Amino acid sequence: MTDFTRPDGRLSDALREISFEADFAANATGSVLVSFGDTKVICGAMLEKRVPSWMRAQNVPGGWLTAEYSMLPYSTLERKQRDSSRGKPDGRGVEISRLIGRALRAVVDLQKLPGHTLWIDCDVLRADGGTRTASITGAYLAARLAVQKLVDEKALPENPFTDSVGAVSVGIYNGQTVLDLPYVEDRDATVDFNVVMTGKGQFVEVQGSGEEATFTEEELAKLIALAKKGIKEISGMQAAFLTKHLLGDLSF
Amino acid sequence: MTDFTRPDGRLSDALREISFEADFAANATGSVLVSFGDTKVICGAMLEKRVPSWMRAQNVPGGWLTAEYSMLPYSTLERKQRDSSRGKPDGRGVEISRLIGRALRAVVDLQKLPGHTLWIDCDVLRADGGTRTASITGAYLAARLAVQKLVDEKALPENPFTDSVGAVSVGIYNGQTVLDLPYVEDRDATVDFNVVMTGKGQFVEVQGSGEEATFTEEELAKLIALAKKGIKEISGMQAAFLTKHLLGDLSF
Amino acid sequence: MTDFTRPDGRLSDALREISFEADFAANATGSVLVSFGDTKVICGAMLEKRVPSWMRAQNVPGGWLTAEYSMLPYSTLERKQRDSSRGKPDGRGVEISRLIGRALRAVVDLQKLPGHTLWIDCDVLRADGGTRTASITGAYLAARLAVQKLVDEKALPENPFTDSVGAVSVGIYNGQTVLDLPYVEDRDATVDFNVVMTGKGQFVEVQGSGEEATFTEEELAKLIALAKKGIKEISGMQAAFLTKHLLGDLSF
Amino acid sequence: MTDFTRPDGRLSDALREISFEADFAANATGSVLVSFGDTKVICGAMLEKRVPSWMRAQNVPGGWLTAEYSMLPYSTLERKQRDSSRGKPDGRGVEISRLIGRALRAVVDLQKLPGHTLWIDCDVLRADGGTRTASITGAYLAARLAVQKLVDEKALPENPFTDSVGAVSVGIYNGQTVLDLPYVEDRDATVDFNVVMTGKGQFVEVQGSGEEATFTEEELAKLIALAKKGIKEISGMQAAFLTKHLLGDLSF
Amino acid sequence: MTDFTRPDGRLSDALREISFEADFAANATGSVLVSFGDTKVICGAMLEKRVPSWMRAQNVPGGWLTAEYSMLPYSTLERKQRDSSRGKPDGRGVEISRLIGRALRAVVDLQKLPGHTLWIDCDVLRADGGTRTASITGAYLAARLAVQKLVDEKALPENPFTDSVGAVSVGIYNGQTVLDLPYVEDRDATVDFNVVMTGKGQFVEVQGSGEEATFTEEELAKLIALAKKGIKEISGMQAAFLTKHLLGDLSF
Amino acid sequence: MTDFTRPDGRLSDALREISFEADFAANATGSVLVSFGDTKVICGAMLEKRVPSWMRAQNVPGGWLTAEYSMLPYSTLERKQRDSSRGKPDGRGVEISRLIGRALRAVVDLQKLPGHTLWIDCDVLRADGGTRTASITGAYLAARLAVQKLVDEKALPENPFTDSVGAVSVGIYNGQTVLDLPYVEDRDATVDFNVVMTGKGQFVEVQGSGEEATFTEEELAKLIALAKKGIKEISGMQAAFLTKHLLGDLSF
Repeated sequence: MTDFTRPDGRLSDALREISFEADFAANATGSVLVSFGDTKVICGAMLEKRVPSWMRAQNVPGGWLTAEYSMLPYSTLERKQRDSSRGKPDGRGVEISRLIGRALRAVVDLQKLPGHTLWIDCDVLRADGGTRTASITGAYLAARLAVQKLVDEKALPENPFTDSVGAVSVGIYNGQTVLDLPYVEDRDATVDFNVVMTGKGQFVEVQGSGEEATFTEEELAKLIALAKKGIKEISGMQAAFLTKHLLGDLSF
Repeated sequence: MTDFTRPDGRLSDALREISFEADFAANATGSVLVSFGDTKVICGAMLEKRVPSWMRAQNVPGGWLTAEYSMLPYSTLERKQRDSSRGKPDGRGVEISRLIGRALRAVVDLQKLPGHTLWIDCDVLRADGGTRTASITGAYLAARLAVQKLVDEKALPENPFTDSVGAVSVGIYNGQTVLDLPYVEDRDATVDFNVVMTGKGQFVEVQGSGEEATFTEEELAKLIALAKKGIKEISGMQAAFLTKHLLGDLSF
Repeated sequence: MTDFTRPDGRLSDALREISFEADFAANATGSVLVSFGDTKVICGAMLEKRVPSWMRAQNVPGGWLTAEYSMLPYSTLERKQRDSSRGKPDGRGVEISRLIGRALRAVVDLQKLPGHTLWIDCDVLRADGGTRTASITGAYLAARLAVQKLVDEKALPENPFTDSVGAVSVGIYNGQTVLDLPYVEDRDATVDFNVVMTGKGQFVEVQGSGEEATFTEEELAKLIALAKKGIKEISGMQAAFLTKHLLGDLSF
Repeated sequence: MTDFTRPDGRLSDALREISFEADFAANATGSVLVSFGDTKVICGAMLEKRVPSWMRAQNVPGGWLTAEYSMLPYSTLERKQRDSSRGKPDGRGVEISRLIGRALRAVVDLQKLPGHTLWIDCDVLRADGGTRTASITGAYLAARLAVQKLVDEKALPENPFTDSVGAVSVGIYNGQTVLDLPYVEDRDATVDFNVVMTGKGQFVEVQGSGEEATFTEEELAKLIALAKKGIKEISGMQAAFLTKHLLGDLSF
Repeated sequence: MTDFTRPDGRLSDALREISFEADFAANATGSVLVSFGDTKVICGAMLEKRVPSWMRAQNVPGGWLTAEYSMLPYSTLERKQRDSSRGKPDGRGVEISRLIGRALRAVVDLQKLPGHTLWIDCDVLRADGGTRTASITGAYLAARLAVQKLVDEKALPENPFTDSVGAVSVGIYNGQTVLDLPYVEDRDATVDFNVVMTGKGQFVEVQGSGEEATFTEEELAKLIALAKKGIKEISGMQAAFLTKHLLGDLSF
Repeated sequence: MTDFTRPDGRLSDALREISFEADFAANATGSVLVSFGDTKVICGAMLEKRVPSWMRAQNVPGGWLTAEYSMLPYSTLERKQRDSSRGKPDGRGVEISRLIGRALRAVVDLQKLPGHTLWIDCDVLRADGGTRTASITGAYLAARLAVQKLVDEKALPENPFTDSVGAVSVGIYNGQTVLDLPYVEDRDATVDFNVVMTGKGQFVEVQGSGEEATFTEEELAKLIALAKKGIKEISGMQAAFLTKHLLGDLSF
């Protein structure tokens, strides 16, 4: 393994440079531009004063949190056609939207959003691998900024978050387990995992698949361990960002 | 844990009764009705003499395999509206269609389907939990029956399958890891995993999420082990079924 | 006409083998798999506690009955694309859905479904001619099974059916009037009729057209008489099936 | 039956006043405004130099004829929402479009439209019952005017029509069989038939249904006879109109 | 400029022959067939007893007026596909619908339509340039006829119109500013303007663009002056038409 | 008018602070973030190696330029639903997309884009009035950056631009003509104009409407003059930006 080299020279367990820019879309209640290397995603969070029709129909108490993920047409090197022009939604986008929604609902007490829907929007400004994990990581921050403002304005009684949540991709590239894959690695990886965990170190979602290939139990264990290490670091960066942008005690 | 009881009285590591009925939709090239307890899915496989437009546009060699999953309106206790009546596809259905496609492509050599698309259709006749894992398990069998007929008829030069593939759900229900969850368990499970493996024991896909909850690394390990055990049994049943319905050596 | 032979050797006034399998889709309130020879249609009936928006808007009293017909992708020898993938409904399917709905409403007292919609779903599992008439014949049985269960459970005050209803196709094939055409006859028939009648021998719907051809009044009369004979037999089979599956007096 | 009176005072076997106005939409190759009493339909016919994709895919020789029927928003007393605004086509409109297409194809030799599609458009300007039969009657005339011009311009080698075609509605209203029902009769009729016949007296299509009611074989025979009488008169009016507008021998 | 000739021989500041036919679609509350030369548009106006959902949601007082513009398939020399068949609305049609709506709302006091929507439909029967300005001109008349009937029937308390409204196209063709362009001029014009004004001489909308070209301030001034002259004449014809069809004082 | 005050204290003929940030979406061939005060729009330009189907069908020589405009869900204070979720495009967005396309085509020689489509995408990140004019202004810059790169890479033979293009809004607010309206003025303005001009001072598009109001010829003249002044300044800023980012002579 001594001769193994990643295209960008990183160690196999090193993250790309990660950064967060607050209030990037200033009309959103909370917003963040999250960067994982060259991958950049705009995350916005806004509250709507109603719940989905299925909740109303079934009289489900509490509120809801939902997410929509989309790639801007110029986020990829070949222009990506808009969903509204294609006439039908993009299957991959639907799948990722659902993943982001589940990830955030895992750390939210929906009873503390009574009668409201918290909307999370993630729009990829530049895609270079790992857009779904960057989206989850940024969406949490945008949602937290929004929630703080809503609590301050008394639009919400209290913070519904029970933990922080972050995500990272891991994979097998050139026979090596690697952390946080950019596009050039992702394209050639034989196994591709997305892992979502909370700040307290709990798993929220594990999604991995062989890309027209398969993997062993040992590889699975190594990938999980690597993701755990990566998310722990990401979690720390999230906490640092929120400490700077929110007042008060941020522990759960 | 001695007093733990599953609603249907099974042991925590026991599968439901699984069965396969060949040629259930006799106009399909290959078809199977797969049952996991009360969950019943019709799986059909048919070959189309062309590849998707993105493959033609990019001159990708070989062929393609794609899947579509749908729930029949009367498969659930409350009638499920058809996608064609709702006017837009159901996000969950899109996600599962993509999963089935990936699972089967992992054990197919697409170069052996030159210029063709193998279509896999899975329609849920009765839903009682685990419809996506039953679909993958049955889809493999339907596809194998179809491929055998196509090879016999010289519509395909040879069998493109490199391994068998099966799937099962595992989860944490009442604090206990359990195998192959029916709806009543699935509804209340705190963690829900779908695992796809090949007959040779390789992982193809691992997808798990806390349902508005989280899980630990130990729980993850236990769930993976339980899934492995279940799929091994399912794999055996698949082999037995194919031995009965196909001639010749079925080893990979 | 002595030398006339149908492809399957039947007499010109003979039905194919017809059978009904109850509770085929066990989550439906009532369901039947109907077979007319190789044509097989899954019929499901379920009650919804609301009426269409146009009835609410106009304050129409009573309830409604509506039907949806679809061909499963593997029901035909060439795979049929799903409506949800085509992006627009199939005109033929829309036309048949409306026919099934009208046929059943002719024998239902909608005042006895107050505030409810009875949904009839017909999904073709295997298509070999006559799918619309098989659908009507099976839909009646599925609806009757559903109604019996709903009356037993006190979800409906009483049975809204005023008569039974069945249907059959007739046509002119090779210059001969024939009953219950399979696909090979249907494809080459010059005239194609679908006739719907009640158990009491009343007509509900007569639909016939020359397939890029025309027909005379005498041919029309012969076709109607042949259909009448066929439906009378079908009616008897329906009554026998219901006698076996429902308790009590089934006369209208 | 002596005291039977129709709302507009007509005899039970009398048609409404029928008229045709040529070149109503002067950019169409052929066009007619057809009136059956207050029912007014604009019929346009235009040729397109290609055949539908299914014909190309299957290398079907000859050409095609297809029809589209629509109600203008102000054709009814309550404004009718446009299909393009509803987002999905209107089932009734789809059914009628298909009927008009079949009716015209029955009297056209498609081999004489090689590589072309003859488009028939019927837009209801004012609806007062019988819009589909007025559409068929007018569509034939518009198509004949178009065909004559196309033959004159050598865009078509010869007239593809083998016969004329017309249509009328008949029904049972207040227990009486009546011809050519306006809306007030149609609304209350217990049985409603649409009959399509050629100028030579052949049947093309017979479509009748009890409106939440049923009918007997005797009633069927009376309705068919009444329709036959009506279409014979309509056929004569069509011939007179074409004699005025087209040169040469119009016999088939 | 002495040698300048328009294809139809008109002076550069002359309108085509303009005419209005009342009650053209007699089921509409008000309707007009407007002709600007060979351009013919059916305009219908009908009242609906509800306001759009965004007004209900925001509790906006008063009523609404909205317009829909469409070209009939046979209005152009090449058949125009229907929006409902294309599966998506035509951008140009959406833009014109919005323009017609704005133009009419400028001369309507929406507070005098409490709880109602006045629907304006414009369907082009024959297109020969200037369909949008003919539509606005005719739509005003149809709406006024409708309003008069609604006031007479006490469905509306009073006439909500505050002024009349008309429109005309102007452009630069062969280097010359011309009024009311037919298709042959419009196709080759380098600048194309649509101007909407009230009977009192106020501007409502000015929309002009260089067709892959540009224009100067002087040209703009000349075009505006020419449009003003044209609309003044059109305004006079509108007043004459209404004087004939409506009773009483029509001054604003 | 001495006491007239704009909400943000600007003079009536002053622009908001305008800025451009190059390469904002770095995967686009050319991109700019344009700000007019708090209004921020991401503009991206990318080349596609094919022309629209209507050009291919009609064998139109040269290339094409097209634009798509959209508001990101968090660009407004109330979240704006995505087009892909609404199921149908937003009429206002369609209208603006068409305007941007026309504006840019007016300064492009399409013959110099042979066989290519230049795609312009404008996504509003923050909306505070004037998003369409900011979009045009930024789109020109993004397109120029893209063109320069394409020429450098020999993907295009030469620069197809014949002039620069910019746009600004003007309106009547509180009875005063004002330049570059933010949302609070736009909402209450009685007249609202969007003017597009080239760097050489030619008009490309003039679009103005009374918002449920009208305007006089004098007001029109004042608005045009004000817009001209504003665009001249904007033109200068565009030139300065390009001088910094592109090499060589930028004069036309």
